[in-house]
Formats: sequence, structure tokens, C-alpha cells
Amino acid sequence: MSSATQSHLVRDLASHCGALVIGDGAVRISNIASVGSAREGDIVFASDQATLRLALDSRASAVIAGEFGRDVTAPKPILIARDPKLAFAQVASLFSSGEKRERRYESAQVDLSAKIGEHTWIGPGVVIEEDVSVGDGTSLQANSVLCAGVAVGRDCRIGPNVTIYSGTELGDRVVVQAGSVLGSTGFGYVRNQHGHYSLFPQVGRLMVGNDVEIGANCTIDRGALDQTVIRRGTKIDNMVHIGHNVEIGEDVVIAAQTGISGSSRIGNGAIVGGQVGIGDHATIEDGVIVGSGSGILSKKVVRGKGVVFWGTPARPLKDYLKELATLSRLSRKKEE
Amino acid sequence: MSSATQSHLVRDLASHCGALVIGDGAVRISNIASVGSAREGDIVFASDQATLRLALDSRASAVIAGEFGRDVTAPKPILIARDPKLAFAQVASLFSSGEKRERRYESAQVDLSAKIGEHTWIGPGVVIEEDVSVGDGTSLQANSVLCAGVAVGRDCRIGPNVTIYSGTELGDRVVVQAGSVLGSTGFGYVRNQHGHYSLFPQVGRLMVGNDVEIGANCTIDRGALDQTVIRRGTKIDNMVHIGHNVEIGEDVVIAAQTGISGSSRIGNGAIVGGQVGIGDHATIEDGVIVGSGSGILSKKVVRGKGVVFWGTPARPLKDYLKELATLSRLSRKKEE
Amino acid sequence: MSSATQSHLVRDLASHCGALVIGDGAVRISNIASVGSAREGDIVFASDQATLRLALDSRASAVIAGEFGRDVTAPKPILIARDPKLAFAQVASLFSSGEKRERRYESAQVDLSAKIGEHTWIGPGVVIEEDVSVGDGTSLQANSVLCAGVAVGRDCRIGPNVTIYSGTELGDRVVVQAGSVLGSTGFGYVRNQHGHYSLFPQVGRLMVGNDVEIGANCTIDRGALDQTVIRRGTKIDNMVHIGHNVEIGEDVVIAAQTGISGSSRIGNGAIVGGQVGIGDHATIEDGVIVGSGSGILSKKVVRGKGVVFWGTPARPLKDYLKELATLSRLSRKKEE
Repeated sequence: MSSATQSHLVRDLASHCGALVIGDGAVRISNIASVGSAREGDIVFASDQATLRLALDSRASAVIAGEFGRDVTAPKPILIARDPKLAFAQVASLFSSGEKRERRYESAQVDLSAKIGEHTWIGPGVVIEEDVSVGDGTSLQANSVLCAGVAVGRDCRIGPNVTIYSGTELGDRVVVQAGSVLGSTGFGYVRNQHGHYSLFPQVGRLMVGNDVEIGANCTIDRGALDQTVIRRGTKIDNMVHIGHNVEIGEDVVIAAQTGISGSSRIGNGAIVGGQVGIGDHATIEDGVIVGSGSGILSKKVVRGKGVVFWGTPARPLKDYLKELATLSRLSRKKEE
Repeated sequence: MSSATQSHLVRDLASHCGALVIGDGAVRISNIASVGSAREGDIVFASDQATLRLALDSRASAVIAGEFGRDVTAPKPILIARDPKLAFAQVASLFSSGEKRERRYESAQVDLSAKIGEHTWIGPGVVIEEDVSVGDGTSLQANSVLCAGVAVGRDCRIGPNVTIYSGTELGDRVVVQAGSVLGSTGFGYVRNQHGHYSLFPQVGRLMVGNDVEIGANCTIDRGALDQTVIRRGTKIDNMVHIGHNVEIGEDVVIAAQTGISGSSRIGNGAIVGGQVGIGDHATIEDGVIVGSGSGILSKKVVRGKGVVFWGTPARPLKDYLKELATLSRLSRKKEE
Repeated sequence: MSSATQSHLVRDLASHCGALVIGDGAVRISNIASVGSAREGDIVFASDQATLRLALDSRASAVIAGEFGRDVTAPKPILIARDPKLAFAQVASLFSSGEKRERRYESAQVDLSAKIGEHTWIGPGVVIEEDVSVGDGTSLQANSVLCAGVAVGRDCRIGPNVTIYSGTELGDRVVVQAGSVLGSTGFGYVRNQHGHYSLFPQVGRLMVGNDVEIGANCTIDRGALDQTVIRRGTKIDNMVHIGHNVEIGEDVVIAAQTGISGSSRIGNGAIVGGQVGIGDHATIEDGVIVGSGSGILSKKVVRGKGVVFWGTPARPLKDYLKELATLSRLSRKKEE
């Protein structure tokens, strides 16, 4: 799905991101770039004075800066925004492929009972089983598989080689990158008197809210008897594992390779670093920040909006750093 | 593969799981549920008195309980089982889709030399290369790939987008969830005098025993010159990595995101938590329990049936907890 | 892709790997094996005297050994090499399937604008979008997907169910195992005043050098505005995650389940163990060795050719071991 970029006037970009133009608003911009790689026609952003100077020296045709750029004399237009990086991201969306290609490849296998919305793009080798519904404007990339009964909302983008198992429901504007598996069978077994394991029923559902974005090669299990839930706006990096019956709130961020065991809850606005391990039935309350590589024990509750937890078992950052320092000091002392 | 559920009499469910019915055995049950979500016609289970009370107040039509439920007066039948959760799991299997659909989709690419058993289900886009054998009753879901010479036993369920490389042999009733890769090339290199690496030959096999269940997006490497082996009844969660020449015993449980380096051995009945790292040539003896997030060093041997190891390097839980407490105490002391 | 093996004379194998033959150079060898599984016609290797004795007692028809084998009297030829394991790996390559099968399956979907080299093998269900280029001798296994504009060099081997997103360029002789995702969208968001996240533009490229080998189920993100780069000869194990804008040098080795956050750099010849977590904007300089399970903090620089770092936060191995010993000692002391 290649992109064809359009060009925009600086003044239109400024109006789109709520910035003030200093200089010529009629300059035409055809793409975004980093300061280091900018060419003529590109717009870049600067988060501080030093970067602004580099940006002005670069080949970029316009620069988004903060208040600190207001009094700079420059040979190219500067857009003054409250948050230059955010403004840049907003502007960038105008240059991305806005095309709504509409196509169903012949090699896609769509069951006759499936309800497919309008303006959808269904790639080659895509498999859509019975009773699936796909909302308007959604794209399903090559070789992805939607099992029976799956519901996908509007304007979703499902990457290549994705698997969505039965029992899964996605909201609108959900993004799932390549290779991720949604609605897999959870890991719950009961052991009999001979020491053999049998699967505890895993027949619940997986509900994914609007604007959730899921990286590549993730796995998210369906509920055992109830639901796994991921609420609106949450963003999940690559290779994150989410077990059965987990509930994740709104606007949560989870970095790569983190694992969340069954029945744990993560509150709204929490930030979870990479390679974190969260035991089962744990609770991360609203707004908590969990540092990368931390381990949260089963049933543990961590709370405090903006409080950083770190280490295994995770403790407030202050305590963790103190313990590291103590250990280092004692270890050196012994040496003396 | 959607499920059509059947209904059963309470007395038949009781007889299936070896429970005693107190109350009306002729009540008709049409599904399983959790206590919180139960509707009329559902059966639920209760592991303790408190849950039993909730279950009796719920809309469920029958409850599986332990001995503690024997003398309870209730408006609905109670099934008394030694292990209510196990009994529930056994009963649940009666409600899951028992249908043996038999089909080969036209878009599946099956090499003429492949031997395909009876009553198999071969989904759209499945690729079966030369000299593959697939046992009776096995299902291969959409877009999975079986490379040349792979052997899959009877009644296996291979999920969508799974890859099974040459050199792999699966027993009967093996489950592999979506996106997993079996029989991949191991990570063994030799470095030459110029500092460049060449692959050490990785031409061994991967043998997976009966009733092994493998989660989504796992990777299990074939042996280098010999075999990687996973024995009967072992259950593996999502995103587990198993290196070349590893040997895993019977009835082992391995939770999500754990990695096992080359040539390590795990004994029968061991339990390995999530995100555990096991170095190469290590040995986890029969029945050992390794806590989540632990690290087992290369060549290390850990032993003791039922003994819990934790931390990095992993040590008996008692020692680990003591060290954590010591560090916390010393750190607070310094502060005073 | 099955292998047909050829046979070779011992003297030809010796000349291929620069070894000296002691004994009959006319013995015919048809395969490689481990000492434990060798059959007649196999060649094996021994890294020490004890293994050499086992090898001579085995059914193998020839043995590669080091200088220590020079004066051994044996009933079968011994090949004396400087590095027996390296010599064995070199010899092994002669027995692997050298066949260059050439085929394009009908079910492969190749866009008409794609440039496909000669002697390529394009498996069933492969999807090649517009403007892709594939070099001579490259094989693309079943159900792999190359998105628009991807460039793959000569003699590459792309496994089944691999996804290569737009913006990715692979050199020659690159190997990518099943299920890996290259060029995925990086994890970079900006938060607006309502606490909602929007994606920072992720429109950069991913450049992979010659002779890079990538395991199964890895994820490697494209650059945000610039590039993610992996240079010549680097070898990457299964389930490794590499974030946007990361730069990895030549001949680097990265073991399974390691994660490298955005904008970090790893120098030439570094060795990174399994399950290592590297924060963003960190630098691992040339030749550093990072022990398995270590954590490198954001922006941290670790240096020293051949120096081993370990723990979280990673410190020189000597310090780490001392701290572990101190903690253990203090913990025992308290008990007394």
C-alpha cells in the first residue's frame, strides 16, 4: 500500500495544527523529514533552540518550533506551536497516504455469510470465515485470517499474516500490525490425580476498544469464561503478551515484550515499560508508571498517579535506587 | 470453526465427571459459564463456600461444588465433586464443538506426494509440501505451512499462520496455536579468523510428543545434529522460545515468554513461570518449580521435587526472600 | 525444500576446510553427524581428546580433530584442523541441499510492476506487491508477504509467513526465518492535552546488510523519520525486537528474546545475550559482551572490547558478582 504525497501551503499546515506562522505562509511543503535528512520542500520540527539552529541551517523549507522560536530571524518560515512535536505529528498525518483504495483480491477467501462494509480493502490470501463482520473503510492486508464470528469495526487496519480467532470484537480505527494473534486460547489448566493437565475452558471473548493500536507479533488471549478487555486509545508495542481475563484501561501505553498474566488489571493512563512481567490477579492502578524490566508479583496492587515503580518485586523508584546504592557501597566496603 | 452447543441432563454431566447429584438430575444444561455471567441453562462451579453462595444466587441452573456443598439446601441441583474445577473442565468438554468437519479448501496447496488421513480439515491457503503426512481427524487452519517431510499425528489442531519446518514430527492430539514456528534453524555459529560468523549445521530434528499443547507465536528450534524433544502432555504458553537440542520431559508447564537456551533439559512435571531465562546446558530436574522472571545460569543444575527457585541467578525461594529483606533493611538503616 | 545429499572423498573435504588428512583420503563420506548418532558414511568432529576417543569408537567413517589428534593411531581417517568445529561447519555446507530450484507457484500473487530476478523460488501463497524487487537466486517461502517497494537482494532466503513492510531493503544472502516482521511501524507517540496518544510519524526505512541472518518471529521496526540499520554479517536469534532508528554494527550476535529500544546503537562485533533489555538512546560500543537477562538503561554508554557487563542496571561482571556475594553473605549473617 504505497503512498502518494500531496503538497500543502505552510499557512494551511499551521492552521491544521494551531500554530502561528512567522515568515512566508505561501511556501509549499511536500513532505515531512528529520532535520538530518531534510530536503527542499520538507517541513521539520525543533524541540529546543539548538535543534532550531540546525533546522534553519538544513535544507528544510519550514520549521515547527516552540515559543523559543518566536524572535528568531530566519530565511524560512517558522511555525510557532505550544508542543512542536505534537504539532509535527498532526501535520504529518496530512502527508500520509490518505487514499482509500477499495479492492477485494480474487485470492481472498470470503465466506458468503460474512458482512463486509463499503470502501474496504481485502488483500490477497486473506481468509474471512463465516459470520465475520468488517466495518466500512477497513483494510485487511495479505494473508491475514479472521475466524468465524469475528467483528471488526470501521477504518481498522489489520496487517499481513495477522490471526484473529473467534470470540474477538474490535472497535473502530483499531490498528493491528503483522503477525499478531488476537483471541488465542488462554493458558489455564487443571491437573488430575495422575499429574496430567487438561485445559480449563477458554471460551470467553476479547473486546478491543476504539483507537487501540497493537504492534507486531503480539498475543492477546480471549477470556476463559468471561472477557479480556482493552479499552479505548491504548497503545501496545511489539511482542506484548496479554493473558486471559486481563482488563486494560483507556490510554494505557505498554512497551515491547511485556507480559501480563491472567486476570490482572491496568488502570487508565498507566505507562508500562518494556519487558515488564506482571503476575496474575495484579492491579496497576490509574496513572502508575512501571519501569522497564520490572516484575509485579501476583495479586499485588500498585497505586499512585505518576508514581514510578521499578525492580523485581517492583517498588517505588526511590527505594529501588537506594537499595542498588546500598548494595554497591557494601560490596565495595568489603573489598577494602 | 464456530461451535454449535448441545444440551445435557445434570445427571449425565455428573456421571461424566464422577460427581454426586444433590437435587434434580433431570435439569437440562446447555452451556458452561462463570458465576458472574451465568444465564438460565448454564452450569457453573464453586471452589469454596462463598462462591457457592454467589452461584446459588446467580441465574445458573446448576452448580458444581466440593464436599462443602453437600449439606446446603438449594433451589437448584448441586454436583458434589472431589475437585470442582477439574470436574467443571471435564464437563465443559461436552459443550465444546464436537463436530468433526471434514473439508479441503480448493485454495489449499497440497503436494501430490503428501499422505493425508481421513476426516481432516484443511483450511484455505494451507500449504503442504512434498512427503508430508497428516493423521486422521487433524485440522490445519488457514494459511498454515507444513514444509517437506513434516509428520503430524492424529487429531491435532494446527492454528492459522503456523509454520512447521522440515525435520519436525508431531504426535497425536497436539495443539499449536496461531503464528508459532516449529523446527526453525537453531542459533549456533562458529567464528572464523576474520571475526565473521558461519552457521554451525542445524540439520537435526524436532520431536513433539502426544497431547503437547503449544501457544501462539512460540518458536521451537530443531536440533543441530541431534534432536530437540518435547515429551507427552507438556503445555507451553504463548511466545515461549525453545532452542536447539533442548529436551523437555512429560507434563511440564511453561508460562509465557520464557526462553530455554540450547541443550538444556527440563525434567518431568517441572513448572516454569513466565519470562524465565534458562542458559544453555542447564538442567531443571523433575518437579522443580521456577518462579516467573528467574534466570538459570548455563550448565547449572537445579533439583528438588516441589522446591521453588527464584531470582537471577535462581536460588531457593527462602534464600531469595531473605536476601530481598536484608537489602531492604540495610537500605533503610543507612537512611536513619 | 527437501535436501538431496551428495557424497565426497575425505581428501576433498580436507582440502575444502584446510585440514591435513591422517589415514585414507579416499574414504567416501555421505553426511555429517554428531558423535552420538553417527552412522557409516558420516563425518563427525571432536574438540578434545575425550570426544576424539568416542568418535573413533563410533560408527562414523571419519573424524575432524585438532592438533591433539595428530599422533593418534586410528582405524579411520582423521582430519587435523586448526579449529575442528569451524572446519566441520565448513565441510557441512557441502552436504546441504545445494540445489537451486527455480519455480513460481501459480498461487503466488506477484504484482506486474515487481522486478523478479533469475533462478528465484516463489512459494505458494506468496504475495509480492507493486514495485518490489527480488534479486537472483532468492527464495521466498510459502505465504510470505513483501509490501510495496520492498527490495530484496540476491540469494536471500525468506521463510514462510514472513512479513516485510514497505520501506525495507535487504542486502544479499540475507536469511529471515518464519513469522518475522521487518519494517513494522515503530512505537512512538505524542500525547495531547486530553491525555490521548497519536502516532509520531513512522515513515523512515529499514536497511539490512549482506549476510545478516534473522531468526523466527522477530520484529524489526522501520525508522521514524530516518533509518533503522543492521549491518553486514550480524546474526539475530528468534523473537528479538529491534525498535525504530536503532543502528547495529557488523558481525554482532544477539540471542533470543532480547529487546532493543529506539535510537540505540550497538557497535561492531558486540555479543548480546538472550532476554537482554536495552533502553532507548543507549550505546553498546564495539566488542562489548552483555550477559543474558541484563538491562541497559536509557542513554547509558557501555564500552570495552571483550568486557562482560551483567545485571540490571548492567555493570562489569566483576562488580556484579561481588554484589551478589555480598548480599548472600549479609543475608546469611543476619540469620546467625
